[in-house]
Amino acid sequence: MDTAILAEMLTRVRQTTPLVHCITNYVTVNDCANALLACGGSPIMADEEEDACAITQICGGLALNIGTLNTRTVATMHAAGAVAGKLGHPIVLDPVGAGASPLRTQTAASLADELPLAVVRGNMSEIKALAGAAAATRGVDANPADAVTPANLAESASFARELAQKLGCVVAVTGAIDLVADATRALAIHNGHPLMGRITGTGCMLTCITAAYATANPARTLEAAAAAIAGWGIAGEVAADRMGALDGNGSFRTYLLDAAFNLTAEQLVQNARIEEA
Amino acid sequence: MDTAILAEMLTRVRQTTPLVHCITNYVTVNDCANALLACGGSPIMADEEEDACAITQICGGLALNIGTLNTRTVATMHAAGAVAGKLGHPIVLDPVGAGASPLRTQTAASLADELPLAVVRGNMSEIKALAGAAAATRGVDANPADAVTPANLAESASFARELAQKLGCVVAVTGAIDLVADATRALAIHNGHPLMGRITGTGCMLTCITAAYATANPARTLEAAAAAIAGWGIAGEVAADRMGALDGNGSFRTYLLDAAFNLTAEQLVQNARIEEA
Amino acid sequence: MDTAILAEMLTRVRQTTPLVHCITNYVTVNDCANALLACGGSPIMADEEEDACAITQICGGLALNIGTLNTRTVATMHAAGAVAGKLGHPIVLDPVGAGASPLRTQTAASLADELPLAVVRGNMSEIKALAGAAAATRGVDANPADAVTPANLAESASFARELAQKLGCVVAVTGAIDLVADATRALAIHNGHPLMGRITGTGCMLTCITAAYATANPARTLEAAAAAIAGWGIAGEVAADRMGALDGNGSFRTYLLDAAFNLTAEQLVQNARIEEA
Repeated sequence: MDTAILAEMLTRVRQTTPLVHCITNYVTVNDCANALLACGGSPIMADEEEDACAITQICGGLALNIGTLNTRTVATMHAAGAVAGKLGHPIVLDPVGAGASPLRTQTAASLADELPLAVVRGNMSEIKALAGAAAATRGVDANPADAVTPANLAESASFARELAQKLGCVVAVTGAIDLVADATRALAIHNGHPLMGRITGTGCMLTCITAAYATANPARTLEAAAAAIAGWGIAGEVAADRMGALDGNGSFRTYLLDAAFNLTAEQLVQNARIEEA
Repeated sequence: MDTAILAEMLTRVRQTTPLVHCITNYVTVNDCANALLACGGSPIMADEEEDACAITQICGGLALNIGTLNTRTVATMHAAGAVAGKLGHPIVLDPVGAGASPLRTQTAASLADELPLAVVRGNMSEIKALAGAAAATRGVDANPADAVTPANLAESASFARELAQKLGCVVAVTGAIDLVADATRALAIHNGHPLMGRITGTGCMLTCITAAYATANPARTLEAAAAAIAGWGIAGEVAADRMGALDGNGSFRTYLLDAAFNLTAEQLVQNARIEEA
Repeated sequence: MDTAILAEMLTRVRQTTPLVHCITNYVTVNDCANALLACGGSPIMADEEEDACAITQICGGLALNIGTLNTRTVATMHAAGAVAGKLGHPIVLDPVGAGASPLRTQTAASLADELPLAVVRGNMSEIKALAGAAAATRGVDANPADAVTPANLAESASFARELAQKLGCVVAVTGAIDLVADATRALAIHNGHPLMGRITGTGCMLTCITAAYATANPARTLEAAAAAIAGWGIAGEVAADRMGALDGNGSFRTYLLDAAFNLTAEQLVQNARIEEA
C-alpha cells in the first residue's frame, strides 16, 4: 500500500486540532487526554447527561469507551451519541471487556446498534463478542486463541469486512497484527511492540487518537483509522528502542506518549508496514 | 514587585504541610495529588457528601474543580464548601469549562455565589463566563481571543480587580500572562512555558497548589496565589529546559512535577517575573 | 528468616499472571493497573454491581480499596466480595482513610466483618481504626504517633497477631517498618524508602500487588504478602538510588514502577530484610 495517504491524515490532525469528547473509563482517562494532546488533538471529558450533550455540541468527534461503565454513564453515552449522530460527528466505540460480562457485551451491542458509528476498535475477543460470535474472553485482554496470525489473516480479514458491512462502520481489530476494514477492503498493519501490552490503556488511548484522526479526516475514515493505528504502533517501536537497562513499564508509558507527540508524517510514511488483507 | 514575600509563602507551605481536600475531576486527579505532594502539601480526595463533609473537617483547605461534574458531586461541593466556610478554611474554585456548557457555567456561578471563596482560578474564557460576560469558549481551553496580552493588560487587570471586588475573593486568570487580583491590586506574572498547554491538568494542578499556598498563608491570599502561580510557571520553565530530543509531553509531565518538587525559595525569588498591573 | 520462600512467591506470580479485579479509588487507579502489570499480574476494574459480580467470576482475586468510596461502590464491594468469597478467591482490603471519617471506618469494619478476607493492608492509623482502637488519624497518612518503631516493635507485632486472629486473615501494617502477621506469627520488614510517601498511591498499588501475590499463592498467604511488601520496598530502594539532581516525585513514580517491573527473584532473596517479630 502507498503510505503517502497516511501522511495526509496526520497532517490534517496537526493542522485542525480536533476537539474530541471522551466518555471513558476512569482507569486510563488521564492517559487518553495526554494521548489526544500528543497526537495533535484536544480532549474534553464529561459524563453527566446534561453536561455531556452540551459538550458534544462544541466538539468535532466523540469517543465512547465502556470500561468502568455504570448505569448513569451508559445512559449518557446513548444520549451524547445521539447528539453526535445528528451533528454528523464521527463516533468511535471501544467495547472494553465485551464478552467478559453480559452488561458490557449488551452495552457495546446496543451502542453499535443505535448509533451511526464511524469506527469500532477493540481486540479480537471484544470484537467477536460484539459480533455475536462465541468468544471466550480473558478480562480486558484478548484470548490468545483469538489472535490474528499470518495463518488466519485472510479469514480474519473476511470476518472484519463482514462485520464492517453489518455495522456500517470501519472495524479495527488491534493486536500483534492489526486489521482495519470497511465493507469492501481490509488492511493489515504490522507495527507495534509487545511492551504495549505491559502498560494499561494502550487500547483506550488508541481509540481516542483514532477519534481525532477520524474527526480531522471525515471523508477518509478507513485511511484515518489506519494512520492512527500505524502511527501508534510506530510510537510503540520508538518507545521500545529507547528502553534502558533500568527502565520498565513506567518509563515505557512515558516514552510512548513522547513518541506519539514527536511522530512526523515522514516517520509514518517510511515506517508504516501496511498491506491489503 | 519585591519577590521576597513569595519566598515566605513557599516556606510556610513546606513547614506546615497543608492538608487539602480536593473534590475534583477524575481526569487529572492523580496529577493533582502528586502536585500537592510535590509542592509540600498533602492531598485527600472524597466526593460522597457524608464522607466529604467529615474529611473537610480534618483538612486545612478545600479545592473545588467542576471538570467531570455530576449531580452527586455538585451537591457534595456545596455541602463540603459550607462546612469549610464555617471553619474558615480557604476554598479555591476551578470553574473548568465554565462557558462550555450551561451546567458548568451555572454550577461555577452558584458555588461562587454561595461559598466564601478565597480564590477562583481559571483561564480567561472560564473567568469571563463566571463573571457573566459573553465569552465564547472552546472546550476546556481558553478562546485565543480571550488571551491576556501586553496590549490589553491594563484592561484585563481592571476586569480582574472588579470581579475580585464582586466575588469578594482573589481572582486568578492564568494563561501566557497570568493575572492575580484582589479588589484593589492586580499582579501580572510572566512565567511559564507553552508546553504546559500540551499536557492535561496544568490548570487543575495549579488550583490544588494554590489551595495549599492559601491554606498555609491565610492572611496573605493574594501573595499566596501569586507565589503558587509564579512557582508553577518557573517549574514549567525548568521542565522545558530539561527536554531532550526524544522527549514529548509524557516526559514534560514528569519533569514538571519534578521541578515543582525541587522548587526552592531562592528560585522563586530570583526567577519570578511579577509586576503590578 | 530464610528469604528463599519469597522467591517462590514471586515466581508463581510471573508464571500464572493472576487476574485481579480491583474496586478502587479513582485517584490512584491508573497506578494500580500499571503496578499489577509491573509485578506480573493483570488488572481489571469494574464498579457497577451487575458488571462487577460478573467480572469477579472470571478473575482469580479481588482488591477492595475504600478511597473515594460512595454509596454505589460500597454496595458493589459487598456484592462482589460475596461472589469472590463463594468462589474462594483471595480478597485484599485496603481501608484507606479508616479513622478519618465515620463512613470510611464503618465501611472498612463492615467489609472486614462480612467478607472472608485473605489480607487487610493499611497504615497503622487505618488498621487501629479498623480494630476499633482509638486512633487519631491525619487524612490518608498515618499519624506519626502510630509509627512502628524498634522500641514498640514487639508490642505492635502482638497487636497485629491479635487482630489477625480476630479478623481471621493476614494483617499487613505498612510504614517505615512493615509488619505482616497471621494469628500465630508476625514478620517485620525493613525495606522501603521515605520517597515512597512523597507520591500518591504507594499503599494502593501495594494492596493490588499483594492481591496478585495472594492469588498466585493461595496456600501461603502470609509469605505471599511478605514477598509483595518486601519486593515493593526493594523497588522503592532501587528507584531512590536512581534519582538524579533534577528528579523529584514525578520521576520517582516512574522509577518505582520500573523497578517493580524488573524485580527478580534473586533481588528479592538477597535484599529482603525480614525478621520474625
